[in-house]
Amino acid sequence: MNYLSTTEGILFTDQYQLTMAQLYFRLGMHEMPAQFDHFFRNYPDYGSHQAGYCVNAGLDWLIDWMGAARFGEEEIALMRGMTSSTGRRLFEEDFLSWLGSNGDFGGISLQAIPEGRVVHTNAPMTVVRGPLALAQILETPLLNILNYQTLIATKAARVRESAGEALVLEFGVRRAHDRGGNAGTRAALIGGADFSSNAGISHALGYPPKGTHAHSLVQAFLAQGMTELDAFQAYADIYPDECLLLVDTIDTLASGVPNAIRVFERLRRKGYAPVGVRLDSGDLAHLSMRVAQMLDDAGFPEASIVLSNELDELIIREIKLQIAQEAARGGLDADNIIRRLVYGVGTRLITSAGDSSLGGVYKLVGLQGKKGWRPAIKVSEDPGKTGIPGSKKVWRIYDGRGRATADLLTLDDEDPAGDWRLDGQQFPDDRVAELPLRLRHHRERTKSRILPAKSISRIEPLLLDVLVEGRLVCERPTTEQIRAIRRADVASLDEGVRRLINPHFYHVSVSEKLWALQEHLLRSLSKGSVDPAF
Amino acid sequence: MNYLSTTEGILFTDQYQLTMAQLYFRLGMHEMPAQFDHFFRNYPDYGSHQAGYCVNAGLDWLIDWMGAARFGEEEIALMRGMTSSTGRRLFEEDFLSWLGSNGDFGGISLQAIPEGRVVHTNAPMTVVRGPLALAQILETPLLNILNYQTLIATKAARVRESAGEALVLEFGVRRAHDRGGNAGTRAALIGGADFSSNAGISHALGYPPKGTHAHSLVQAFLAQGMTELDAFQAYADIYPDECLLLVDTIDTLASGVPNAIRVFERLRRKGYAPVGVRLDSGDLAHLSMRVAQMLDDAGFPEASIVLSNELDELIIREIKLQIAQEAARGGLDADNIIRRLVYGVGTRLITSAGDSSLGGVYKLVGLQGKKGWRPAIKVSEDPGKTGIPGSKKVWRIYDGRGRATADLLTLDDEDPAGDWRLDGQQFPDDRVAELPLRLRHHRERTKSRILPAKSISRIEPLLLDVLVEGRLVCERPTTEQIRAIRRADVASLDEGVRRLINPHFYHVSVSEKLWALQEHLLRSLSKGSVDPAF
Repeated sequence: MNYLSTTEGILFTDQYQLTMAQLYFRLGMHEMPAQFDHFFRNYPDYGSHQAGYCVNAGLDWLIDWMGAARFGEEEIALMRGMTSSTGRRLFEEDFLSWLGSNGDFGGISLQAIPEGRVVHTNAPMTVVRGPLALAQILETPLLNILNYQTLIATKAARVRESAGEALVLEFGVRRAHDRGGNAGTRAALIGGADFSSNAGISHALGYPPKGTHAHSLVQAFLAQGMTELDAFQAYADIYPDECLLLVDTIDTLASGVPNAIRVFERLRRKGYAPVGVRLDSGDLAHLSMRVAQMLDDAGFPEASIVLSNELDELIIREIKLQIAQEAARGGLDADNIIRRLVYGVGTRLITSAGDSSLGGVYKLVGLQGKKGWRPAIKVSEDPGKTGIPGSKKVWRIYDGRGRATADLLTLDDEDPAGDWRLDGQQFPDDRVAELPLRLRHHRERTKSRILPAKSISRIEPLLLDVLVEGRLVCERPTTEQIRAIRRADVASLDEGVRRLINPHFYHVSVSEKLWALQEHLLRSLSKGSVDPAF
Repeated sequence: MNYLSTTEGILFTDQYQLTMAQLYFRLGMHEMPAQFDHFFRNYPDYGSHQAGYCVNAGLDWLIDWMGAARFGEEEIALMRGMTSSTGRRLFEEDFLSWLGSNGDFGGISLQAIPEGRVVHTNAPMTVVRGPLALAQILETPLLNILNYQTLIATKAARVRESAGEALVLEFGVRRAHDRGGNAGTRAALIGGADFSSNAGISHALGYPPKGTHAHSLVQAFLAQGMTELDAFQAYADIYPDECLLLVDTIDTLASGVPNAIRVFERLRRKGYAPVGVRLDSGDLAHLSMRVAQMLDDAGFPEASIVLSNELDELIIREIKLQIAQEAARGGLDADNIIRRLVYGVGTRLITSAGDSSLGGVYKLVGLQGKKGWRPAIKVSEDPGKTGIPGSKKVWRIYDGRGRATADLLTLDDEDPAGDWRLDGQQFPDDRVAELPLRLRHHRERTKSRILPAKSISRIEPLLLDVLVEGRLVCERPTTEQIRAIRRADVASLDEGVRRLINPHFYHVSVSEKLWALQEHLLRSLSKGSVDPAF
């Protein structure tokens, strides 16, 4: 059996997608063009704090997966053997035969907000259009791939926010969820980590993997009757230009740092600049100050202090705050300590500790049947889960300072920028005033606001064409280009939305016409079906 | 480039493992036999509740990974291209040549506690012995594979605890961490889920994948001008013996359940028994009671009610508690409602929501150098992180009721059962009284207890030989066998340890001799090196 093909290929999906696909086939609905929106309803909420925005990630891996996944002979054979609970064969031969000839994603068109962009609740990040049966089967793997990377890119953007300009290293593969760790490393690099310790995937993405050494190195020397100093010296001999020493195996201040300094002094005599030390236990804020002073006193003001041990965005923030306060009291220069800190962030980044999933969903919003294109809507006992129907456009509105102020969903044929063809270009200043925008809350009738046209500096469409019937129609940006997109997009957010705790709420609104469509469908639904005349 | 080989093979490790390996090579230490223990220090803590035990899982996948991973030509070529930050080549040719000839896990021996067994803090679950360089490189992938599956098997055991005898379905692949979802499904099946919706991996593990249908099925019918009833009827026509209908797309009580009952009645006339309905929103406890009554009234007392929507062990517990209380007040039979419930558990199981990582670690405990075998110890600024040194055995002690009462770590040559060769066999009753055991806390000097011999019914060794120099020396149990092990082991726990909230603390102790070794090493370490005379 080809293990990877049958477990990570097109059958890496929920069983009900396959049974629904056969039902559509049986009723002749399987090739009806359908549209599904992918979006999330809530930002990650880490318990004591929550995100004010997400960073989109995963699309490039989804494209790869879609290009490779198909119902091949093995998959068909496997499905042929599936039975119902009473032993009846589950999938009939005519359906399997159709899958064998048509069971790939060559008929799927996909629009998406590019990776690295800031994304918000309820706005479609990915729009899938294609034959109903295959668009349905795609639901599970699409969500699997995009939910996790977006979750981790978002967490990494928060770590970047608290780390400021400091180097951030992703160290989490040992606590990642099996091989999901590779996707996590990629997302961390997109969202805010500079480098990762994960050797293979770092190389594949074009980043040199980074690392120091483990406690076991020092332990191995001690078990041989040698010393911590011997271990440090051996490391410096072999990696003279990469000398970063872990100083907490025995006693950070009494043994580790003094030994490191002796080794650094020898390195200096040979013409090398030591990289620094790593602290992995104890009170990292307090130890950073003490160690910085010891390194300064020994004449190594440029030596870095790498911190690790269950760091996340709040712990980094607390460490920096404590140093700022304590240093002032002790007559030390806090900036001189903080500027040399490097953050090794592991478990809490790669698993998004506190909120370990993003609730991205994939909802049918329209279907082209025998009577033409019909929008579809999902209602719910939970009002917040009622969907926004139909084929839509997503726009980002920037205020006079160039800051993103709202995302707006409109019908597909609406253009909130009026008669101008904008395509992401800057508004001509003298005409902005002609275009006031009414933004409605997508569910609450009484909530709306008018955005005076003169307060709008730019209206940008967010969804770009990625696949047209399986064919790639856009450039695939490099990871480095995606990082640049993330940096620019986060910088265009209001400071309040970027806040790590209790962020300001970012508005995602719907247009008047989209609101009207939604209301109409909800009324039709309560009558039992959708009015075809709309 | 062979993407999978270089990103999921032997380079699915932290970069520092590779640089340390070269250092050991340079010093002639790379082939010294070394021993590492894998264990965890804390049970998962989900914030409002915590686990009292873990369920071991992942070993079988580790064995597969170790058998396939090696430094092949691609890996060597990739490492040849790695440079230090100043552009110097990082790995020398002699080391790469050694890796090319010796860079696999053929020299590694491995002992482990079998999958499915209950495991506790600080007791080695996996013991790795082999050439220092390769045992070091194994650290990261071993932890990656074992940490996650043990985390999820533990969560699944808790869900099983609260679900009682009810069917539990794992539904989480769309929110899992990328392809880690397959490992998560396996672990969920080991720990307590009966089936999974994840089609490919379920089949690979020998379980039929399970599912119902999605809201989109009903939506697609509505968008075509048809009705929920039409959708249900189509489903029943195609899957008459698997008819499980999702009833909350429009209105659970006013539309979904009445429509389902009409379809069930037609099925019954054709001689089929309907499976039941699924509820995915609203107040699941209250709706379960209403829906059970409607199904009863229609003459379908055997129809199941599948619940889904962010379930976990506490929510399942609350639903059952509420039904028990409300049903009594309303004159309903709570047992009749609860016995028909099935739990679809997704996101919160597959990501272990609340605590999304298990802090398993891998620590050097001994090294065979030029002067013979030496135990190694890791001290820490955090006293709880100081390791237990040396080559050890792990024993489980059962009390007079046959309940597991403590795990005991001893030196490798100790046998707490005295002169008898036990090998997991029952004690001869008349000799038990000769063997009182002193159990010491592994860190706190003042904490110890004497276990009267007459209170001990059995002493069982937990670590079994799995690999001897790369060669498999044990049977590889099927997933079904592993589940049976889990069921028996959980059943042998004290009720207090199984408690979902604030569980009773399970004792993991060390023997007098192991305590003495640890004390000796700590004293030696404070003198700067390990006394070779011990």
